[in-house]
Amino acid sequence: MGLIEDTVDSVEPLKPEWFYRASLHLDGLAKPKGSLGKLEEFAKRVVAITESERPSLDRKAVFVLAGDHGVTQENVSAYSREITYLMVYNFLRGGAAINVLARHVGVDVFVVDMGVDWVFDETPGLIIRKINRGTKNFVKHPAMTFDEAKRCIETGIELALDKIREGYNFIALGDMGIGNTTSSAAVMCACTGLNPEDVVGYGTGVDYETWKRKVRVVETALSIHNPDPSSPVDVLSKVGGFEIGGIAGIILGATSKRVPVVVDGFVSTAGALIALGLCQAVGEYMFFAHRSAEGGHGIVLSKLGFTPILDLDMRLGEGTGAVLAMSLIEAGVKIYNEMITLKEVSTLSL
Amino acid sequence: MGLIEDTVDSVEPLKPEWFYRASLHLDGLAKPKGSLGKLEEFAKRVVAITESERPSLDRKAVFVLAGDHGVTQENVSAYSREITYLMVYNFLRGGAAINVLARHVGVDVFVVDMGVDWVFDETPGLIIRKINRGTKNFVKHPAMTFDEAKRCIETGIELALDKIREGYNFIALGDMGIGNTTSSAAVMCACTGLNPEDVVGYGTGVDYETWKRKVRVVETALSIHNPDPSSPVDVLSKVGGFEIGGIAGIILGATSKRVPVVVDGFVSTAGALIALGLCQAVGEYMFFAHRSAEGGHGIVLSKLGFTPILDLDMRLGEGTGAVLAMSLIEAGVKIYNEMITLKEVSTLSL
Repeated sequence: MGLIEDTVDSVEPLKPEWFYRASLHLDGLAKPKGSLGKLEEFAKRVVAITESERPSLDRKAVFVLAGDHGVTQENVSAYSREITYLMVYNFLRGGAAINVLARHVGVDVFVVDMGVDWVFDETPGLIIRKINRGTKNFVKHPAMTFDEAKRCIETGIELALDKIREGYNFIALGDMGIGNTTSSAAVMCACTGLNPEDVVGYGTGVDYETWKRKVRVVETALSIHNPDPSSPVDVLSKVGGFEIGGIAGIILGATSKRVPVVVDGFVSTAGALIALGLCQAVGEYMFFAHRSAEGGHGIVLSKLGFTPILDLDMRLGEGTGAVLAMSLIEAGVKIYNEMITLKEVSTLSL
Repeated sequence: MGLIEDTVDSVEPLKPEWFYRASLHLDGLAKPKGSLGKLEEFAKRVVAITESERPSLDRKAVFVLAGDHGVTQENVSAYSREITYLMVYNFLRGGAAINVLARHVGVDVFVVDMGVDWVFDETPGLIIRKINRGTKNFVKHPAMTFDEAKRCIETGIELALDKIREGYNFIALGDMGIGNTTSSAAVMCACTGLNPEDVVGYGTGVDYETWKRKVRVVETALSIHNPDPSSPVDVLSKVGGFEIGGIAGIILGATSKRVPVVVDGFVSTAGALIALGLCQAVGEYMFFAHRSAEGGHGIVLSKLGFTPILDLDMRLGEGTGAVLAMSLIEAGVKIYNEMITLKEVSTLSL
């Protein structure tokens, strides 16, 4: 596991002294202490992550990772499989929700084919890193091989390092893939021990019968494959998805370079669990954007001890919650950088 | 009450047909129905408020209304009275939290002297509408005369109409005034019947002893003046503040012109209660930006049946929560305007 191990080894826990320095600065600004609440917490954490007293989050990127899922054969989604590649074209054209919201808050969108069941021509703006044409149906076979699982994560690490080399200093994660809430639920149950009933949601909007089938599919997959929660690569290979592995890799890559990361909703959280399983320290570098309305996302976050920033009943994926949260985190950093001090205020009228 | 009555008379309840039209459009976009949660609700409401199928919130203004409070004589604040005018200078210089956050999300800041105890020279960017040099100490006298209370509200209406005439189509409210959380708590208790103990907060960060005194001050004022909840002008005159009345007026003025309004936190909510008391229909035009960490703000919102958009432990005022929420509401409107339809997606690869 060369690249993965090397990356994990280079992730450092945050140092308390940076939180302390940031607090001192914030407490001197022209406002009552702590009165900007979580905005101040965001700023402190970004100072500690970047180890900079003038942090900047001005170059923002969201990765939208796309992949197909063999488990769609079990009829667990309200949309057909073709929607995955069609939505990739939509991302490239700029007409999807993530494009609209990313433009709104000044984030660049990078679309990655991690494993869509479609052969794309070379298209400007599309990053092709296809591991395979969709995963296998994991109620029958492991979703992917152990080697493919490692390659997803390695690919994610490389994607992060590439963009950081280009100058990006703030990274968000998004996903697209019909069937991927089923895979994500399975990953989350495997990693946390939570029951499929409590985690599986209605995805793109299935009916109750389909939801029950989706729960059974996850239960069956877990009992057949018995994924090992102490081996995130094992979990990913048995019940995961290519985009879920890619998300885990991007988190590791960004974190190893001290770049803060924003996790979107249900699917990105599955990726975050894989990353956390490989390296507990990445938790300090991640911001959880929102409590998704999908299934037991809130329960999973509570169990992990993470508090989401927003709670807007969103459940679309694509990184839509993540880019909105990016803007709030950046707001906190601008407060830190741009406000004047209380001492300066007292001289203003003179 | 010429201007106030005329304005109230011209506020119309929202029409269900516009919600319906907006829903039809949203349900055809390239996403599962309802999957953008509150962003979609924001868009529907803006369509209904503006009665436009192509609404725009591109010209955004936040009013920061400043006023002084005689009740500071009772030693209820951690900061001295001079901070009010010093912060006005800070707003004009651009170094306050509201300046930073308004720049971040593209909102223009308008600072209004509604009743600061300081004589400002004519200064670019400062709108001087001084009703008086601070209110009276309301544990001894009514905070202002009935006529002054009416004039605050009329001034707010005129401020809103002026800016709407200049082209602003989205208005947020903010406040500055040492002592104004005490006045606001008194207004909220008078209007809702809630107990001062449940509503009064720690303001700029007072200690427990001061908090207890603050509660007693509010209790005393309410029992001495016995403000009439059915007459918002009576409430405002007895225990309010000039900026609180101004906020109420801006809400009425904006609403009468079908311009959506964003209410900030504790103090702005007191203003919103005055506006609601004069005209129940304004409730549909208001967005409550966030649950403030100040006192019983959340309890007041629950009692009124309003759900705040954000919950970030903020308690600064100035409109800081409001401008952040503006950006989220605008995001919903852009989703409505800019996303392509599911039907269009199906033709994309051809």
